[in-house]
Amino acid sequence: MKLNDAYLSRFVSEKELEKIRPEAEAALKKLKEGTGEGSDFIGWRDLPVSYDREEFARVKRAAERIRKNSDVLVVIGIGGSYLGARAAIEFVKGNLHNRLNKNAPEIYYCGNSISGPALEGILSICREKDFSVNVISKSGTTTEPAVAFRLFLALAKEKYGDAAKERIYATTDKSRGTLKSFADREGWETFCVPDDVGGRYSVLTAVGLLPIAAAGVDIDALMAGAAAARERYYVAGGFNDCLRYAAYRNLLLRAGKSVEILSTYEPSLALLSEWWKQLYGESEGKEGKGLYPSSVVFSTDLHSLGQYIQEGQRILFETVIDLGKSGSNLAVSYDGENADGLNFLAGKTFDEVNRTAMVATILAHTDGGVPNLVLEVPDRSAASLGELIYFFELACAVSGYILGVNPFNQPGVEAYKKNMFALLGKPGYEELGRSLAERMDGSLRQM
Amino acid sequence: MKLNDAYLSRFVSEKELEKIRPEAEAALKKLKEGTGEGSDFIGWRDLPVSYDREEFARVKRAAERIRKNSDVLVVIGIGGSYLGARAAIEFVKGNLHNRLNKNAPEIYYCGNSISGPALEGILSICREKDFSVNVISKSGTTTEPAVAFRLFLALAKEKYGDAAKERIYATTDKSRGTLKSFADREGWETFCVPDDVGGRYSVLTAVGLLPIAAAGVDIDALMAGAAAARERYYVAGGFNDCLRYAAYRNLLLRAGKSVEILSTYEPSLALLSEWWKQLYGESEGKEGKGLYPSSVVFSTDLHSLGQYIQEGQRILFETVIDLGKSGSNLAVSYDGENADGLNFLAGKTFDEVNRTAMVATILAHTDGGVPNLVLEVPDRSAASLGELIYFFELACAVSGYILGVNPFNQPGVEAYKKNMFALLGKPGYEELGRSLAERMDGSLRQM
Repeated sequence: MKLNDAYLSRFVSEKELEKIRPEAEAALKKLKEGTGEGSDFIGWRDLPVSYDREEFARVKRAAERIRKNSDVLVVIGIGGSYLGARAAIEFVKGNLHNRLNKNAPEIYYCGNSISGPALEGILSICREKDFSVNVISKSGTTTEPAVAFRLFLALAKEKYGDAAKERIYATTDKSRGTLKSFADREGWETFCVPDDVGGRYSVLTAVGLLPIAAAGVDIDALMAGAAAARERYYVAGGFNDCLRYAAYRNLLLRAGKSVEILSTYEPSLALLSEWWKQLYGESEGKEGKGLYPSSVVFSTDLHSLGQYIQEGQRILFETVIDLGKSGSNLAVSYDGENADGLNFLAGKTFDEVNRTAMVATILAHTDGGVPNLVLEVPDRSAASLGELIYFFELACAVSGYILGVNPFNQPGVEAYKKNMFALLGKPGYEELGRSLAERMDGSLRQM
Repeated sequence: MKLNDAYLSRFVSEKELEKIRPEAEAALKKLKEGTGEGSDFIGWRDLPVSYDREEFARVKRAAERIRKNSDVLVVIGIGGSYLGARAAIEFVKGNLHNRLNKNAPEIYYCGNSISGPALEGILSICREKDFSVNVISKSGTTTEPAVAFRLFLALAKEKYGDAAKERIYATTDKSRGTLKSFADREGWETFCVPDDVGGRYSVLTAVGLLPIAAAGVDIDALMAGAAAARERYYVAGGFNDCLRYAAYRNLLLRAGKSVEILSTYEPSLALLSEWWKQLYGESEGKEGKGLYPSSVVFSTDLHSLGQYIQEGQRILFETVIDLGKSGSNLAVSYDGENADGLNFLAGKTFDEVNRTAMVATILAHTDGGVPNLVLEVPDRSAASLGELIYFFELACAVSGYILGVNPFNQPGVEAYKKNMFALLGKPGYEELGRSLAERMDGSLRQM
């Protein structure tokens, strides 16, 4: 992996970069010494080397069991409790893996919304197929996954009776909380959400690893990739690519860029971008600060957001994932008629054409006044993904400290929850409920 | 449908709204009289009433044929040539319709990227199943769909021989162009991309209608909904909801909001947001102007971008789709143990809880300094969708004229294409090719 900043030179000078360098290095130091804000949640720093081997082995065995006895795995979790797994599975196995990957269960993500149709659809699939459930929640009381889990648990018991307990896997607090006690009473296998790793940093814990392994991704390679990145960026220190990424994005923010777009060129990377958006948006979007994270899949979105990026408000910069090999050797075919005039492409692989489109776009957008940073990723292997995940996690922490926020809390996520509990009549929220009801009187239609 | 602006009062005054009103009304007047910029492309204004009945009937017959003889429909098109159809199909039939809808073909979208793995996956599905192809391109020479079409055409001929021609449907220029001549020579049925309707406004032409009908959506109801919206917002005139939406977004832009987020609460609406992003981004993102369009699906993304929206830079406003009925009556189940403490929700439908989450979020985000506009949509019917499509199209045109741009061109989309042709050695682009090669010398890794 390599950060290519060749196209940034007309937007950020070497001098500016040198000036922010001490801030980046100080941020890394804080992180290493555990003296920064939010240091209760920096367990992810050492996960790639210090992870629990016994649990890791259990994850693999559970994944094997799921692959043997289930056509479908339902992953119940919201935010960091599903995005990392889904991003990893699509990165390595493709976004059509449920349709194409006949050696692995179909994987559906539930309890990440309050959509009735979404739940009904997946319940109907589970009625027809053998399924297992991985419910992921530190507390077990988060509304979305909890209400979804009620339905899938009932279906599993109805379908499998007492044997349902061999099909439920709970990833939760190691000793306390509603879900942990529930699991222990019912005899479900449990995995641990560590106390010192926040949701958006949890993909390399059992939270991500169990679904990822169930999909057939090599989790040893994933961890090895992350360990390599840890060595290169965290342990070695210096003003390395990871710190430079954190530095650049702060410089661009200070220069008036408000939106960072993560640009990828493979549909299979779309969910990686969603994971990245949570990671950066939740870590930095506080105290009125932070880059707004957005994403595109090109060349698809060159025909939707491309016009805006090229010529709209100059508030954007792009971080481009330059993927070396997509895993396909498909080439453009020759057409005797050459009706479309594209025979000059015949024989080139789609990878070549796609990467040329990327270069063309970087040049065009840069010319249009949009700074482009390029992150070179060799391929879609689990090892490359592990490296990329650790790179983004570390850069995010460093970037947050440069920005001057606590990158490990998310106080703003509570606001809608409190209102929701109050409006739904949860015991203890009566007063807030009354004041909200007054405010909204007449302003929203009745159901 | 109704625009609810009750939550906007603390951000935009009645006086400001009255002040911009003449601009909105002048924009509508320009549009009606065809005197504004880009008036060669305003054919979409009258489509819901003036569409070609003969072709519409052929679309329905072709859709029936596809539904009878195909397990899979491959839709080949990029930008406006797939987003509208995909948005409509998922809106009405759900985002899992390929998996759940056993009475309709699976529908895959191709030629909207240069991804080898994406093409290989869908080719492999078509090798196993009976398929038809709807290739959608005004010219037939756009790179992405053209190279994809080469592959699917070859597969169809290999699999079906001469009968392949009954499985290919070309939606293209009515008389000229590469694809039209190709289709006529080969004997494929053709449908028309009108000259006066741009890609992002084309969903209610055969471009959108054929795949939408093939998925089993009632296209008569879709057009009727659009016609009702045309009557209410376009014909009736006045400072109606549609003009007010256009006015509000310009006022918010002038007040320093740079990003508009379209917020929905059902995963089935995610593609509607993608369609909306092209419509607004491509229409307004020019001359350094325009709101950057972004989207979220809640409550999912309350656990990813929620923190940023609540507390990040105050450069955002939201347009919320308040969906009345999702189509599901699923309710939260009662749990004797009440392990998760959520029995206070038991018996409430997911729709109720979801809509309460929406109200809770509107209140929280508004309190956090993010203006929220609410668009009330009754349900996921084809008629409601038709109304919503026309509402957004008309509002977009009006908004673009208020902004002072031509809402119907997309000059910036050419920039990457030119560079790409030059870098790929397309005849005629040699000089640009040389100058680009010099610029990028050493700055991007070799493949």
